[in-house]
Parts: sequence; structure tokens; C-alpha cells
Amino acid sequence: MSEQWLPSLVTPTPQEGFDLAVKLSRMAVKLTQPSAEVREALRGGYAHDASDLIAVSHVVATHFQTIAAANGYWRTDRG
Amino acid sequence: MSEQWLPSLVTPTPQEGFDLAVKLSRMAVKLTQPSAEVREALRGGYAHDASDLIAVSHVVATHFQTIAAANGYWRTDRG
Amino acid sequence: MSEQWLPSLVTPTPQEGFDLAVKLSRMAVKLTQPSAEVREALRGGYAHDASDLIAVSHVVATHFQTIAAANGYWRTDRG
Amino acid sequence: MSEQWLPSLVTPTPQEGFDLAVKLSRMAVKLTQPSAEVREALRGGYAHDASDLIAVSHVVATHFQTIAAANGYWRTDRG
Amino acid sequence: MSEQWLPSLVTPTPQEGFDLAVKLSRMAVKLTQPSAEVREALRGGYAHDASDLIAVSHVVATHFQTIAAANGYWRTDRG
Amino acid sequence: MSEQWLPSLVTPTPQEGFDLAVKLSRMAVKLTQPSAEVREALRGGYAHDASDLIAVSHVVATHFQTIAAANGYWRTDRG
Repeated sequence: MSEQWLPSLVTPTPQEGFDLAVKLSRMAVKLTQPSAEVREALRGGYAHDASDLIAVSHVVATHFQTIAAANGYWRTDRG
Repeated sequence: MSEQWLPSLVTPTPQEGFDLAVKLSRMAVKLTQPSAEVREALRGGYAHDASDLIAVSHVVATHFQTIAAANGYWRTDRG
Repeated sequence: MSEQWLPSLVTPTPQEGFDLAVKLSRMAVKLTQPSAEVREALRGGYAHDASDLIAVSHVVATHFQTIAAANGYWRTDRG
Repeated sequence: MSEQWLPSLVTPTPQEGFDLAVKLSRMAVKLTQPSAEVREALRGGYAHDASDLIAVSHVVATHFQTIAAANGYWRTDRG
Repeated sequence: MSEQWLPSLVTPTPQEGFDLAVKLSRMAVKLTQPSAEVREALRGGYAHDASDLIAVSHVVATHFQTIAAANGYWRTDRG
Repeated sequence: MSEQWLPSLVTPTPQEGFDLAVKLSRMAVKLTQPSAEVREALRGGYAHDASDLIAVSHVVATHFQTIAAANGYWRTDRG
């Protein structure tokens, strides 16, 4: 995991910030379960489990808080 | 998912901010389970499960924190 | 749900802010499960389930963070 | 519940702030399950359930964040 | 519980702040289940339950946010 | 656990901040279950349990919030 995958929290738009939040939520799983094969097998399960999907959504929400703050909530877009 | 669905976190009123929080909580699920058919099937289940509904409410609360901060808590509405 | 139910996050006192937090936690459930009948049936269950009640309390706590910040923590009440 | 139970988030010390956080976590439960009898019965259960106790602790932590911020983290105590 | 156990949120180092976060997460449990005997019995269980341990870790993380903010993130240590 | 393992929350890059968040989420588990043998046994389980992995990811997200704030969101990297 020595490759660079998170150079910055700054994104041009809120939507790209949201995509980054999704990415961060997956990276923590990847660092805990490094096997792509196992993760793929689990994914088949939790993508069909409502409770798990809601829990994923919560993790994304937490990361999105961080990223939104890092970007000053993209307020300059109002201009 | 290349269409633009989140141009800004700024909303005119707290209530529209709340609606956006609901939307964000659903988008994370959509990005994890892209099949609308599967999501609709799951929805029938969790909409009748108290624990799941409470969990959804928690995700919305987390996104609403972010959106409320982005809007300066709509304090200028006091005028 | 086009009626106006959240005109402002500002409340005169911390206690009314807490009541608003309770209201917000319920509104997210309402937007996910619009049937009042189903919600009432579920309520009979989770109001007797300790884990669910604690989870509700967590959602309220999250909304109360937002509302307290919106009100500057009602610090002017110290006067 | 019209009595006044939350006049302020300001407390003289961090410890009293922590006690207030515990109180807030219980009030949300009280507002959802108003029967003291039912709550007392549930308490006998969750006070012996590790997962429930940890969940209670999480709610307290969330409220303590709010209260600590409201008190400027009691930093003037350093004097 | 009238003894003083939380005089301040300020700690000399991040690590001591982390230890304090662990202490706070335990105090909320103690205030809910005052019997040391019961707590010790439960501890034997949850210390061997992965989900419970992760939940404990989450509570600690929430308290650490508060304590880190209270200490200005110990940034002066950079000197 | 008297050795020094958390000298600072400051990291040169967001990615190293993320790694630190993973470390903090594990340290709380370590402080609750000090036996490396037990932890290793549990790890075999939760690394194959989707719900546990998502919960770990949530803890990491919470710590990453703290670390990102401590680093001013690494905004100077934009330069």
C-alpha cells in the first residue's frame, strides 16, 4: 500500500468530494482486509443487506463531513 | 454516474437542506448498490424495520450537520 | 411533504433546541416510511426495545450538535 | 414534559459537563418512551448487556462533544 | 460518584489525551452500570467479541475528537 | 503501554494521516484487549465479516476527522 492514493482532500466540486468520501470509506476496509478476493466475496453479500448498505452510507457521511470542511464547503462556487 | 447531481451544498432554507441530507444518504447507497431493482426490493424490507429506519435517520443527521455548516446554519434568515 | 416544517434552526432555549432535535430525528424516518400507520406500528416495538431506544437517543444527540452550534450554544443566556 | 430541565449547556467543570451529557442521553429515551415503568424494566436488561452499555457510552460521548464546545472546553480552568 | 475524576480535558501530549478518551468511554459505562462486579463480568465477554471491541474503539474515537479539540490538537508541540 | 506511540497528530500528507487514523482505531482495541493472541484470533473473524469491516471503516473515518482538522486539512499542499 505504498502507492500514493490520497494526494489531497481538495476537490473541484461537492460531487467529486462525495466520490472521494466513498473512496475513503473503501480504503479503510482495504487496509483491514487486504485480499481483493475476500472483499469481492463480501461485497456480494453486503450489497444485498439493507443494514450493511445503510452502515456504508454512514461511513461515507462521516468522510464527507471531513472533505466538505477541507474544501470550505465549496462556498466560492456561489459567486 | 457521470451526471451532475450535487452542484452545491447551499440551500435557501433549512428544510431544503434537510431534503438534501436525505438525498445524500441515498446516493451513498446507490453508489454501493447500483441496481435500482435490488435497492427497491431492499427498501420494502428496511422501511418496515425499526432499527434500519433509525439507522437511516442517523445518516441523515450526519449529512445535515455538514449541510447546515455549509449554509452558516441559515442564520441570516433571522434578519 | 411540501408543507413547511423547518423554518429555522434557531430556538430561544437549549430545551426547545433539544425538542427540535427529537423532531428532526423523527422527520427522517417519516421521509423514508411515509405511512403513519406503519410508523405507529413500529413505534410500539422499538419503544420497548432498549437497543432501538439507545439508537434513537444517538440520532437526537447528533441533531442536537447541529442545533446547538446553530444557536451559538445559547451562550448569551449567561448574561 | 413542559417542566424546565435544560436551562443551559454551561457547567462549571468538565465533570459536571459529563454528568449533563449522561442526562441528555437519558432524556431522549424518556421523550421516546415516556413510561417510567417500561424504562426501568428495560434498564434492568441493557445494564447487563455489553453492547447496549457501549452504545449508551457512544451517545454520552456525542453529547459531551456538544457540551464541551459550549463551554469552550473549560480552558479558562487552566489559569 | 461525587469524587473528582475529570478536572480538565487538557493533557500534555496526544497520547495522554488518548488515554483520557479511553477513560471517558469507560466512565459512561460506569455511570450506567455502577456495579464493578457486573462490569467485570461483562468485560470478560466483550473483550472477546470483535463487534463490541470495534464499538468501544468508536466511542474512544468520539471522545478523542473532543479532547484533541480541547488541546488545540497539541499543535504547539511542533515548535 | 508506557512506550510512546503517539507523539503528534501532524502528518506530512493526507495519506499518512489516514494511516494514523487506522493506527488509532487499532490502539483503542489494544487498550481494551491487551492480549495480542486474542486480538489476532478475533481479526481472523472480523476481517471476513462485512458488518465488522464497515464498522472498522467508521472508526477510521472518525479518527481521520480529528487528524485532518489537526493538520488544517493539509491545505497548504495546494500552494
